[in-house]
Amino acid sequence: MGFNRKDLLGIRDLEKSEIEYILELALSLKEINARSIKKVPTLRGKTVVHLFYEPSTRTRTSFDIAAKRLSADTYSITGSTSSMVKGETLLDTLKNLEAMQVDVFVVRHSASGAPQMLAKHTPSSVINAGDGMHEHPSQALLDMLTIQEHKKRLDGLNVVIVGDIFHSRVARSNIWGLRKMGSRVTLCAPATLIPPHIEDMGAEVCNRLEDCLPDADVVMVLRLQKERQQQMLLPSLREYSTYYGINPARLKKAKPDVMIMHPGPINRGVEISPEVADGPYSVILDQVTNGVAVRMALLYLLAQR
Amino acid sequence: MGFNRKDLLGIRDLEKSEIEYILELALSLKEINARSIKKVPTLRGKTVVHLFYEPSTRTRTSFDIAAKRLSADTYSITGSTSSMVKGETLLDTLKNLEAMQVDVFVVRHSASGAPQMLAKHTPSSVINAGDGMHEHPSQALLDMLTIQEHKKRLDGLNVVIVGDIFHSRVARSNIWGLRKMGSRVTLCAPATLIPPHIEDMGAEVCNRLEDCLPDADVVMVLRLQKERQQQMLLPSLREYSTYYGINPARLKKAKPDVMIMHPGPINRGVEISPEVADGPYSVILDQVTNGVAVRMALLYLLAQR
Amino acid sequence: MGFNRKDLLGIRDLEKSEIEYILELALSLKEINARSIKKVPTLRGKTVVHLFYEPSTRTRTSFDIAAKRLSADTYSITGSTSSMVKGETLLDTLKNLEAMQVDVFVVRHSASGAPQMLAKHTPSSVINAGDGMHEHPSQALLDMLTIQEHKKRLDGLNVVIVGDIFHSRVARSNIWGLRKMGSRVTLCAPATLIPPHIEDMGAEVCNRLEDCLPDADVVMVLRLQKERQQQMLLPSLREYSTYYGINPARLKKAKPDVMIMHPGPINRGVEISPEVADGPYSVILDQVTNGVAVRMALLYLLAQR
Repeated sequence: MGFNRKDLLGIRDLEKSEIEYILELALSLKEINARSIKKVPTLRGKTVVHLFYEPSTRTRTSFDIAAKRLSADTYSITGSTSSMVKGETLLDTLKNLEAMQVDVFVVRHSASGAPQMLAKHTPSSVINAGDGMHEHPSQALLDMLTIQEHKKRLDGLNVVIVGDIFHSRVARSNIWGLRKMGSRVTLCAPATLIPPHIEDMGAEVCNRLEDCLPDADVVMVLRLQKERQQQMLLPSLREYSTYYGINPARLKKAKPDVMIMHPGPINRGVEISPEVADGPYSVILDQVTNGVAVRMALLYLLAQR
Repeated sequence: MGFNRKDLLGIRDLEKSEIEYILELALSLKEINARSIKKVPTLRGKTVVHLFYEPSTRTRTSFDIAAKRLSADTYSITGSTSSMVKGETLLDTLKNLEAMQVDVFVVRHSASGAPQMLAKHTPSSVINAGDGMHEHPSQALLDMLTIQEHKKRLDGLNVVIVGDIFHSRVARSNIWGLRKMGSRVTLCAPATLIPPHIEDMGAEVCNRLEDCLPDADVVMVLRLQKERQQQMLLPSLREYSTYYGINPARLKKAKPDVMIMHPGPINRGVEISPEVADGPYSVILDQVTNGVAVRMALLYLLAQR
Repeated sequence: MGFNRKDLLGIRDLEKSEIEYILELALSLKEINARSIKKVPTLRGKTVVHLFYEPSTRTRTSFDIAAKRLSADTYSITGSTSSMVKGETLLDTLKNLEAMQVDVFVVRHSASGAPQMLAKHTPSSVINAGDGMHEHPSQALLDMLTIQEHKKRLDGLNVVIVGDIFHSRVARSNIWGLRKMGSRVTLCAPATLIPPHIEDMGAEVCNRLEDCLPDADVVMVLRLQKERQQQMLLPSLREYSTYYGINPARLKKAKPDVMIMHPGPINRGVEISPEVADGPYSVILDQVTNGVAVRMALLYLLAQR
């Protein structure tokens, strides 16, 4: 039982029992954020470095809030910062910071596998905060925590993930996690946005939203990056929106207790309509709240080793 | 009496008694900054987010110092940060951060009214740190605190504001504030830099500095943004400086106890000469010192609700 | 004895006894970084501002970690920040921040002498974190601490500095420091990268690595900035690397206990080969670790005055 790893690199690596342990801990830490004094001394004197080679507001701020509410000291190194510009290798940057006694590195990088490579070369802990098209484990954990809170379970559910599966590390981490927990995952997107062989991960594919929406307990809507249109993966945003956008008309065919999720930032009117994003089925802001709790749990587990 | 608002959006909204209350509290918090240990635990465990969509060194740092000296945790989100680039709406950015349990948002935005809009949609507190050409209430409060310290009163004074009134939220907030406190405000600038109907706010207009300077108890010099020349609002900086620049020769016609103020950053040699900026009438750095005290008072009042 | 200055501007100004005092203090503070709780309350309520007009990851982060591990509050102002863009003078920026009650300014600037000028005009302490081609005193102090740890002394050593001496403030600070401590310093580089009259500082010059490497107790390898090639100071990086790059073949002619140092960030394969950078003679990461300790000592000495 428990969680005895040095790093949190992906959901794929985790045992079901480890996921359960993290979620349970997150739930117990969550209430700190609801207090008037939202701070505990648990990680006082610990050093957390955010090493973000891709831009990010929400994930970095969420980790930063999580760290500071546990009283850790935090530092941010971003991709535009000088030593990268000066041509230092990623690993040299890490080793240098490590020599300043860092407990946890929170790493985001556009190259799939970068956090794994770093973790292998440092005794410090590494949390993958999103690597290329590979994994974004803290997102999947917060998604699972949110589903569990609303559905009281993580097994036996039908989860439909709609959108750009091809480029989505959020989708991949959720497929690994939800399959481990015993739920069914269906991926819905135009064929150009579904990666080949994705069924090998245990997910099913469905090209028409009409076919999979009625059975869904949970719909995860992915952000559609507008660049995809220029890359010829989509005929037009409008057509995408017509066939795959989640709007009130479409939700009429869904279960009455369907949950609508989105990892954010949302494109209102593209992949999700404002009525749905702000409506009664949406748990989008619950996801954000749970994000802080999950990241507190991860930092708690790793920084105290 | 006291101050029981959720937000501080503008001076226009405030009662005279509220202004007095804030200034009194600021004065009592000010001495913390003069201590050897410049920190009190008052806002420990509170979360303050600086949401700055316009660049700013001094205002953001002043709020940040104020927050940390009260032991709050602070986070900065700036206009170039990723989720804005990704096309998220301003309100979605706010709602997301709010879901991470933010006590106070300190907001600067180039659009007049943006902080007001945000305040309406969040239970968190919002402090307007400057919105477009509308208001910059913490600046007016620190200006009033500085005048009160030097003149021992805020009523019955002649305050002359010189410079680009048209684009100045500092001028607008000061007009509201000083009129409420019972002082006379005269605006002095070339006609192109005076907004129409500004007299409706209770201020007087004077186009020649020679006419209003002799009676002034306080002269607030506004920063002249060099871009204004390109916008054809000014014939040349040199001509502006000749007619409206505050220099020692001009001050010979002023009262012997005249106060020279400037919200900064100053353009030495344009709207103010170095001799005046660094001279005995200048209280420019007192304003900066009082800025921290006023912002401590505002955060104290709002974060503890 | 001890250290009773307001500022730390350069090694040139320091007495030998002051250097010894700082290194001794750094050594005693160093163990804080090895604790599980890496934090002491020594500088609680102190305000440290990083004023960095040149980009820097490692130096700024090192100072920031040093400050926070002593519990100071820190703020970063960088060259791209607004008030500089708005045309405020360097001194006005300093005076404004000083008015917010800053204990220590850590200043990096591309203009040689900038920190000295600022120090003269403020009662706050100023630490030079690198000014133009002039000095980088905290780097020389961490270099000396690292040499002392490995060689158990700082006198009677042969130190060879290899690389772009002309543009290097690191070289200059180390020459001042190592000469004061009683060691011999030899500078080795192509003639175009050796400044005229450098011998007046007490250093010797050697153009061929083969001539000075065999006697070296310590080799400090400087970063070669690739821009130098465009400035016609170097025929090609490859030629530089052939004649001055530190690689295993070359080290065969060195003493068996030679120390290889580098201030970083390193250009692998240019001035230093990966085998040497990661090899048994390299103390590059020890330098980084000692950097935090030295900066803790400096902040401790200056912030508590």
